[in-house]
Amino acid sequence: MKMKTNINTDDLAVEIIDKLRLELRRGALPLAVLAQLREEHYGYSLRKHLIAKGLDIDEGTLYPLVRRLEKQGLLISEWREDEKRKKRYYRISELGEAVLTLLVGEWRTLNESINGIVGRDK
Amino acid sequence: MKMKTNINTDDLAVEIIDKLRLELRRGALPLAVLAQLREEHYGYSLRKHLIAKGLDIDEGTLYPLVRRLEKQGLLISEWREDEKRKKRYYRISELGEAVLTLLVGEWRTLNESINGIVGRDK
Repeated sequence: MKMKTNINTDDLAVEIIDKLRLELRRGALPLAVLAQLREEHYGYSLRKHLIAKGLDIDEGTLYPLVRRLEKQGLLISEWREDEKRKKRYYRISELGEAVLTLLVGEWRTLNESINGIVGRDK
Repeated sequence: MKMKTNINTDDLAVEIIDKLRLELRRGALPLAVLAQLREEHYGYSLRKHLIAKGLDIDEGTLYPLVRRLEKQGLLISEWREDEKRKKRYYRISELGEAVLTLLVGEWRTLNESINGIVGRDK
């Protein structure tokens, strides 16, 4: 008698999958943030633009990342008043541009490798 | 007088870039390993195949990852004798196949988002 294997994907597997998906995405975030900040944005507008382009990212991940990238000299920030509220505007630095170019190259190479391993039909 | 800005990319920046590159790659490794293990491999041959497809990965990263994926039920392993030496062969499990399909989807979506943010010309 052939039985359909009923793998318990409901609990443990969902947790594993969520973790793997998160890991997959996390590495790409600095690249995405640097690229988006070739236009100037404040935190909220940055997040809205990334989400609009399909990159769902919560505030608790995005804002610390932006601060880290600034600390590393890849972003520049400036406080400005907008509609009577002070907002911190971020944009990419010259060093950030150089790093972005390298990361984009790395991403393209990685994507080619992954496609080669997965097989393009999958 | 216009001076060319000479950013010190030599020390600190190289370190930052290496870290960002590593982060970028790390998230994609489980996907690559699962995909490669649709064929059976032992550790060394797995690594050789991944490297041949452009995914450079050191043993200290690959082997713990493989053990983790097995523990999570995404891989199956078996000790077998090959040329008079016992080797542990790994291949993807049924659950691993399901997870791989999801991760490939996630990767494609992420790649589309990144391309949208970066701009295809960059």
